[in-house]
Amino acid sequence: MAILNRIKRLLVGAPIASKHAHHQRLPKIFALPVFASDALSSVAYATEQTMWVLAMAGTVFFGYTFTISIAIVVLIGLVSTSYYQTIHAYPQGGGSYIVASSNLGSVAGRVAAASLLIDYVLTVSVSVTAGVLALVSMAPGIQPYVIEIDILCVAVVAVVNLRGAKESGFVFAIPTYSFVLLLLFLVAYGLVRLPSLINLPPTGPNHFEGHLESFGLFMVLRAFANGCTALTGIEAISDGVQAFQKPESRNASATLSMMAVMLAAMFLGTSWLAQHLHVVPMFQDATGYKTVIALICERIFGIGPYFYALQIATALILVLAANTAFADFPRLCSFVARDGFLPRQLASVGDRLVFQNGIIVLALLASVLIVVFKGHTDKLIPLYAVGVFTAFTLSQFGMVVHQLRAGKRGTIAISVVGGVATGIVAIVILVTKFTEGAWIVLIALLVMLAVFKVIRRHYDYLARELSLAPDDTVKPMRTIVLLLVPRVHKGILHAIAYAKSITKDVRALHVTLDSKGASSVKEDWAKFGADIPLVILESPYRSLISPVTEYVDQAVEEDPQCMITVIVPQAVPKYWWQGILHTNAAVGLKLALKARKNVVITNVRYFLK
Amino acid sequence: MAILNRIKRLLVGAPIASKHAHHQRLPKIFALPVFASDALSSVAYATEQTMWVLAMAGTVFFGYTFTISIAIVVLIGLVSTSYYQTIHAYPQGGGSYIVASSNLGSVAGRVAAASLLIDYVLTVSVSVTAGVLALVSMAPGIQPYVIEIDILCVAVVAVVNLRGAKESGFVFAIPTYSFVLLLLFLVAYGLVRLPSLINLPPTGPNHFEGHLESFGLFMVLRAFANGCTALTGIEAISDGVQAFQKPESRNASATLSMMAVMLAAMFLGTSWLAQHLHVVPMFQDATGYKTVIALICERIFGIGPYFYALQIATALILVLAANTAFADFPRLCSFVARDGFLPRQLASVGDRLVFQNGIIVLALLASVLIVVFKGHTDKLIPLYAVGVFTAFTLSQFGMVVHQLRAGKRGTIAISVVGGVATGIVAIVILVTKFTEGAWIVLIALLVMLAVFKVIRRHYDYLARELSLAPDDTVKPMRTIVLLLVPRVHKGILHAIAYAKSITKDVRALHVTLDSKGASSVKEDWAKFGADIPLVILESPYRSLISPVTEYVDQAVEEDPQCMITVIVPQAVPKYWWQGILHTNAAVGLKLALKARKNVVITNVRYFLK
Repeated sequence: MAILNRIKRLLVGAPIASKHAHHQRLPKIFALPVFASDALSSVAYATEQTMWVLAMAGTVFFGYTFTISIAIVVLIGLVSTSYYQTIHAYPQGGGSYIVASSNLGSVAGRVAAASLLIDYVLTVSVSVTAGVLALVSMAPGIQPYVIEIDILCVAVVAVVNLRGAKESGFVFAIPTYSFVLLLLFLVAYGLVRLPSLINLPPTGPNHFEGHLESFGLFMVLRAFANGCTALTGIEAISDGVQAFQKPESRNASATLSMMAVMLAAMFLGTSWLAQHLHVVPMFQDATGYKTVIALICERIFGIGPYFYALQIATALILVLAANTAFADFPRLCSFVARDGFLPRQLASVGDRLVFQNGIIVLALLASVLIVVFKGHTDKLIPLYAVGVFTAFTLSQFGMVVHQLRAGKRGTIAISVVGGVATGIVAIVILVTKFTEGAWIVLIALLVMLAVFKVIRRHYDYLARELSLAPDDTVKPMRTIVLLLVPRVHKGILHAIAYAKSITKDVRALHVTLDSKGASSVKEDWAKFGADIPLVILESPYRSLISPVTEYVDQAVEEDPQCMITVIVPQAVPKYWWQGILHTNAAVGLKLALKARKNVVITNVRYFLK
Repeated sequence: MAILNRIKRLLVGAPIASKHAHHQRLPKIFALPVFASDALSSVAYATEQTMWVLAMAGTVFFGYTFTISIAIVVLIGLVSTSYYQTIHAYPQGGGSYIVASSNLGSVAGRVAAASLLIDYVLTVSVSVTAGVLALVSMAPGIQPYVIEIDILCVAVVAVVNLRGAKESGFVFAIPTYSFVLLLLFLVAYGLVRLPSLINLPPTGPNHFEGHLESFGLFMVLRAFANGCTALTGIEAISDGVQAFQKPESRNASATLSMMAVMLAAMFLGTSWLAQHLHVVPMFQDATGYKTVIALICERIFGIGPYFYALQIATALILVLAANTAFADFPRLCSFVARDGFLPRQLASVGDRLVFQNGIIVLALLASVLIVVFKGHTDKLIPLYAVGVFTAFTLSQFGMVVHQLRAGKRGTIAISVVGGVATGIVAIVILVTKFTEGAWIVLIALLVMLAVFKVIRRHYDYLARELSLAPDDTVKPMRTIVLLLVPRVHKGILHAIAYAKSITKDVRALHVTLDSKGASSVKEDWAKFGADIPLVILESPYRSLISPVTEYVDQAVEEDPQCMITVIVPQAVPKYWWQGILHTNAAVGLKLALKARKNVVITNVRYFLK
């Protein structure tokens, strides 16, 4: 165990004292990458996911790519404006859980929390798999190991978060700004060169001939639903207002605006180029797979330094997006756990000042999703965004109530429009992607709500059960000690001394399989037993456990008020592996006696030199 | 845990009392199948394994098949005769470990034991994989699942043995006698029909053209070494003389003779037919794989009821052979463990009167081998038989010494010839199969001997360390109780009463993260704390553990003779899953305090209604 502890310290570092918490406030230039990497990174897959659905409907639908993107950008505008208000209304940080709980009630808050928790898990899975696909686009050789690399990324991000991320501002800035600049320049240069490129034949194979489907509107809506993944992460700034430099709200809202503009520009630009360059998305397990952004970049700059730089920046910002979820998921868990809806262990901060249990849970869940969906981003996408839009909707209707109460009628309209729009989108996403995975999210949501309820009920019951009445008092108690004596040796003297120090009623118990052994124990006990009576118990089934259990039951029957302490002497060898050569009867006894209320089982250890 | 216990009972049955041990003695007709199934079943693969090596050398060598078989049958005669003597010399059961230890000394005994333990593991792996291959020969569809079926078979046999095998006589008789009769009739009918069959073209594809190797003698010796697997299991009767009806030795030796004759007849017959029918062994992962015996049967009877019956009987007797190893391995382990060379847990009989730990260890090791060697019998064979022949050799030289001491000079010659012959064979096997797997056995053997030594040294040291001198006495001891109080609630009253009942020096410890919580605890403690002093400990790193550890160290420094009992109150919920919602600080504390000698950690539980 000392080894385990050393490994832990090596991975996560030395403990950090509580007084070092929250000493860092971020200027806007660092706050943007920290809080916006999740939202900005979704550009890396949102266009592709939109086109993917259109491709399935038939390439004839590709013309809708840009139109759909405009609708999504309008949505980005609406949602950002709503969060702009939230930032000013909740300067302490207004996550959807808090806004929904405090304005719409606990149930709405729980629905928002469950939705967001589900989506944080998906953020990790989707971002990491999409990031690794960016790398596959430049290094096809790694394709067979995609799942392993995905899991490795999740593990690395988890460990970084278990260490605590004090230095995050710098770490986030470089890849985020690199990605934004590289992508915006690609868009700008691509728009300039478009006329000269546009007559080339389409890039990438067209897999979809003969797949033309007739239900056009449904497919267009589903393409829109997939594109809505561009909005994931947009709420992050409103959760973390307190990390901004003063004046917090103003700086945070300015950063939000900046982020929304960047997101809209990158998304629209990518979609426009993809549509007009006739880029066709590829199957993710096709050999030589490239992402849509990689295909665009290849068309404009060819495969060279720019191409590689963009792929690497894309992979990095996506891993950072996963990192954001690793900050948000455990924090939200801790809020929910403090309200008694999740196990309390999730609310406790570890010795590195992070919610280590939440981090571990998230890493495990995301890894399971990645393995189940074989690292395919496009198969994870149907599960994604349902939760986010549910949370958006609840948060915005929460703001409506908040503004009503505060009497700020002027700005209500924005929240109402935002709430209605995101609500409709949530329904569109759920319906169009239902059979392809959204149903899983619905079930997960219901299960989580049920779990919340059960946990809360248990804690409530615990509180009732354990609350003290003024007339509750400590009743005096008598203790009987049963000392197990497998044979009389030096180590047992210590246990005898301990037993005698805690009560006068000590009885030594020897469980015997053959009478010869018993008589030698009797003889030795007479010499060293310090006048403690020795009870010999026969064991017809060769078990140490059952004769002791029966004796305990007898003793309890004689005096139901007494407490029985069973002392099990235990040899502690010098090296851990020697432990394999000893058995500790206490483990089995604890299991066998676990339903007995009046029993305490204690190991008294003797150390071998 | 109650559930685990219920599953265990369902699988292995209710406990059996000691007095029901060994009440059953077997008549010869049932003893033969019980003790001989291992030896007889080796006919199922020994011919094939001989021919397989010859095939690699070039089909031109197939003419040696029968010649090699005759050499092996001579060996069978020698070894059986030697064991015939052992049965009469050691009527209490004379396994190689006992014969070698008592005549040649402890080291020779340990070498014999280690060799046999290794070979029991291989018996399980080889028999089970060969048995499943017999099924593959009749049902090619199961070939992709061979490893899974192998593991399932091992698991079933292990569970049967964990239950204890009282009814084994009947269970063994049917498949063993079926196999013997079906195979002997096949041989007899085959010999009669041979002239009419002999001009047909060879059965099975010839994969080996172009593989002709020049070093003929080495290959012939290796083929002989592979064929020697026919002798495995031949020692079983001499281990189990006490299970025979009186007069034990005479009945046992008669059964041994019977077995040797059957084994020789089946082996010679199969080899003769295989050679003269030009049967060529197949690659085990070739589609449509059939064993040599299956190919022979197909040639003689075609694929029909006889073919299916023989395959099923073969599979069953091979599973029974694995079952024999499941009886022998744990018993040998228990002998070695009683002498202090293996962990003592292996020497204890479980509540079903079986050595359950040895059974579980064997099942795990055999499964690992099967998975590593992908269920290929032919890849396991090079590891096999080295151990058995080492044990044979030691056992027979042990008999030489025994006969010298007993003055029975007349029969010594047989043991000497047997010992020299099996010794040479052991060397031949080791050398010819060295690079193909026998080196693994050699390393395993050396590792096991080293482990035996280390374990024995630990137990010797333990005995010295723990032995009592006449002037050793129990020294009086003072106990301080530290009662952990996370907060004051109803459940803690019980723990307070317990603490007060065992010592006067009780101190309550509250570890605090914030001063507000501490003041509420102080207030409540004043009301319900029964005048026990409350110590508030600050925790700068939010850990419960380290402040308590430090306090313990302080207390020990003040009075190095005292014993510190840390009482951790623990809530016991009604349902096990509710346990997830509680943390038990005792687990972490035990780890943190495990190097402190003067510390006892005790959970006092309170039960939630």
